[in-house]
Amino acid sequence: MTDRSLPVVLCQTPATLLRTLRAEPPLVQCITNYVAMNIAANVLLAAGASPAMVWDAEEAGDFAAIAGALTVNIGTLSGPFVDGMRAAIRGAEGAGRPWVLDPVACQATALRRRVTAELVALEPTIIRGNASEIRALAGEASRGQGVDGRDSVTVAEDGARRLAVDSGAVVAVTGEVDYVTDGRRAVRIEGGSPFMPMNTALGCSLTCLCGAYAASAEEAFDATVGALAHFAVAGRRAHAGATGPGSFAPRFLDALHAVTPEELDAEAVIHATRAVPA
Amino acid sequence: MTDRSLPVVLCQTPATLLRTLRAEPPLVQCITNYVAMNIAANVLLAAGASPAMVWDAEEAGDFAAIAGALTVNIGTLSGPFVDGMRAAIRGAEGAGRPWVLDPVACQATALRRRVTAELVALEPTIIRGNASEIRALAGEASRGQGVDGRDSVTVAEDGARRLAVDSGAVVAVTGEVDYVTDGRRAVRIEGGSPFMPMNTALGCSLTCLCGAYAASAEEAFDATVGALAHFAVAGRRAHAGATGPGSFAPRFLDALHAVTPEELDAEAVIHATRAVPA
Amino acid sequence: MTDRSLPVVLCQTPATLLRTLRAEPPLVQCITNYVAMNIAANVLLAAGASPAMVWDAEEAGDFAAIAGALTVNIGTLSGPFVDGMRAAIRGAEGAGRPWVLDPVACQATALRRRVTAELVALEPTIIRGNASEIRALAGEASRGQGVDGRDSVTVAEDGARRLAVDSGAVVAVTGEVDYVTDGRRAVRIEGGSPFMPMNTALGCSLTCLCGAYAASAEEAFDATVGALAHFAVAGRRAHAGATGPGSFAPRFLDALHAVTPEELDAEAVIHATRAVPA
Repeated sequence: MTDRSLPVVLCQTPATLLRTLRAEPPLVQCITNYVAMNIAANVLLAAGASPAMVWDAEEAGDFAAIAGALTVNIGTLSGPFVDGMRAAIRGAEGAGRPWVLDPVACQATALRRRVTAELVALEPTIIRGNASEIRALAGEASRGQGVDGRDSVTVAEDGARRLAVDSGAVVAVTGEVDYVTDGRRAVRIEGGSPFMPMNTALGCSLTCLCGAYAASAEEAFDATVGALAHFAVAGRRAHAGATGPGSFAPRFLDALHAVTPEELDAEAVIHATRAVPA
Repeated sequence: MTDRSLPVVLCQTPATLLRTLRAEPPLVQCITNYVAMNIAANVLLAAGASPAMVWDAEEAGDFAAIAGALTVNIGTLSGPFVDGMRAAIRGAEGAGRPWVLDPVACQATALRRRVTAELVALEPTIIRGNASEIRALAGEASRGQGVDGRDSVTVAEDGARRLAVDSGAVVAVTGEVDYVTDGRRAVRIEGGSPFMPMNTALGCSLTCLCGAYAASAEEAFDATVGALAHFAVAGRRAHAGATGPGSFAPRFLDALHAVTPEELDAEAVIHATRAVPA
Repeated sequence: MTDRSLPVVLCQTPATLLRTLRAEPPLVQCITNYVAMNIAANVLLAAGASPAMVWDAEEAGDFAAIAGALTVNIGTLSGPFVDGMRAAIRGAEGAGRPWVLDPVACQATALRRRVTAELVALEPTIIRGNASEIRALAGEASRGQGVDGRDSVTVAEDGARRLAVDSGAVVAVTGEVDYVTDGRRAVRIEGGSPFMPMNTALGCSLTCLCGAYAASAEEAFDATVGALAHFAVAGRRAHAGATGPGSFAPRFLDALHAVTPEELDAEAVIHATRAVPA
């Protein structure tokens, strides 16, 4: 890690968390969209965690109580899935488990705005989105309409801090440079590859990895930084040798698996920054 | 392109359309089947478009109004998805957007025959299927029962022309050699790879790419030819070096991404043919 | 095959079945989970079969009557899918077709326990699961809670035999070494790769391949051995040259496709064992 002030910001570095995650693979319940289910499961398995895509309201709450963390994603939203999310969130809260919200395209339709508002009010532990989504949640105008954010991460930093303070969640804005804040602390994380936004549902998969790290961490802020750093390091490694988005994908899973805790801390580019602008 | 008569047949060549598509990536709403969702999104991203798999009836119509095109696929059909298709088609029509129908295995069950008849009556801009599906839609007997067509494209050409005239849609029959007609004009497109039918849902993904091209084109006929040519050229490129269907897949996505507009026109093998048989 | 007693145990070797499967590709109806749908279809296509993920109750029974086999998987369980399973099982039974049950995480929730009990009572031809799932079905305590079994195959052999006798099904327990029994005969199958459990839904895909082999075989026991041997041989081939779970996946599909019937029998490591412990 390039920033010597990080030990002040992070209680547990990415290496510490990855070591825990691999020693005791957390069971992560992912209620995610149809597009993401396969790649998100493969991302968790490659990283070292154990995914389960259990979603139906009749069992989602029971399952949340035996899982280490829950992740909720509204990508291919429908009524039965929202019912499952509600049941799972109740189950996770009852069992004291962290849960992560991924507000995919939350500004695109009235249904999404309504469901997202309800979910944010249920107090997620972590919220991860692109710049357009986080700006929309923070009440700002945004240019994105679909699932791909059109705003740059930088313009979403103020909104992310406000959202973190208002919601009590750790907020992650991911893009070319990622930003993580709990309203008090903030870091930027560099890395990744320009082929990542050309691979569908990698953001959704990162949300699930945040859940895996949250199940292995003492603090949600450290967990979020750990998951994003793991993604950024693996993405940069996979970029070398990839000739396009297709050849990037298997390299990325290999890199998520291959990186050791020591390498993760050594290669992660994390900069502490001021959460409150000067 | 090998056929010098094409400028007479096409107002906009594949290169022209791909240039537009990449300059202003169209948002394409894909209501497709569970098998196809991930690979179809990756195909659109690799080609340069922006996919969104929004399908639920409560928001599908709203979303169709902000998307550049809609694609509808009945592969893993169920009641709620058909409701979503109806809402989205109304939304697309209200906003004057093109929409593409993929009648997967439309002849296999009573449910499929009924839903397909309803969707065709809603006047899709483009219909893309394999030979068995297009023959069934044209009222001919067919040998295919599942999702893989057992008829050759050639035997479906007459039916395709009739279907185009009757429905008002541009009709594409895809297989070893593709056939596109609007009832008046017709072309055959060569290329691709024998590994393509061993990769599930590539036909469904091509339907989504037809939507992306339709959002970028002045005419649906040109759009369909452009999407099919892009697939055929990328498929042929990807075949070189592939040792099976698994290694073909990442190469194909790389090739969809790598091909430039100029290369697309130079490498596409498109033959104008007579729409009305001699 | 390394065991000279196999001709006594198997009526049809894997090679014989694979030859039949490729000469007349069976249409296999797979009602599987959202995570598995794409990879399962690609596995069947690579092996030489023809998949169809038709599941809705309104058509699942009709479709089962035209398919060569049915496979049922409860991974991402919900009410409408269970209705579809019931309809499809009735259709398969009415048409005299084999069907395969994959009881994913059957011990995790009350819903899963109830649905699995109902499905087992409908007398599947084959049941394939990991050691935790098979032990749970046999009424034994198990350590697994999620989709990844934590028990070793060996400890599930007794339960598998009892389940086979009680249910009338051929039972397959898959893991590092696979075990297949019909209560009377039993074999162990070696091969595969440590990257396989890091690729999500490969077990679910193997269940679908059991269906393809069952459609091509005279006996369900031979079919199950054939499908597992095909997987094990392809897995071992794919492991060579793979550098992680990501690069394993395309190699595995290539290997499923490339292996010839002769090579399958030559490379399969199958040991006949005593079904009744000494």
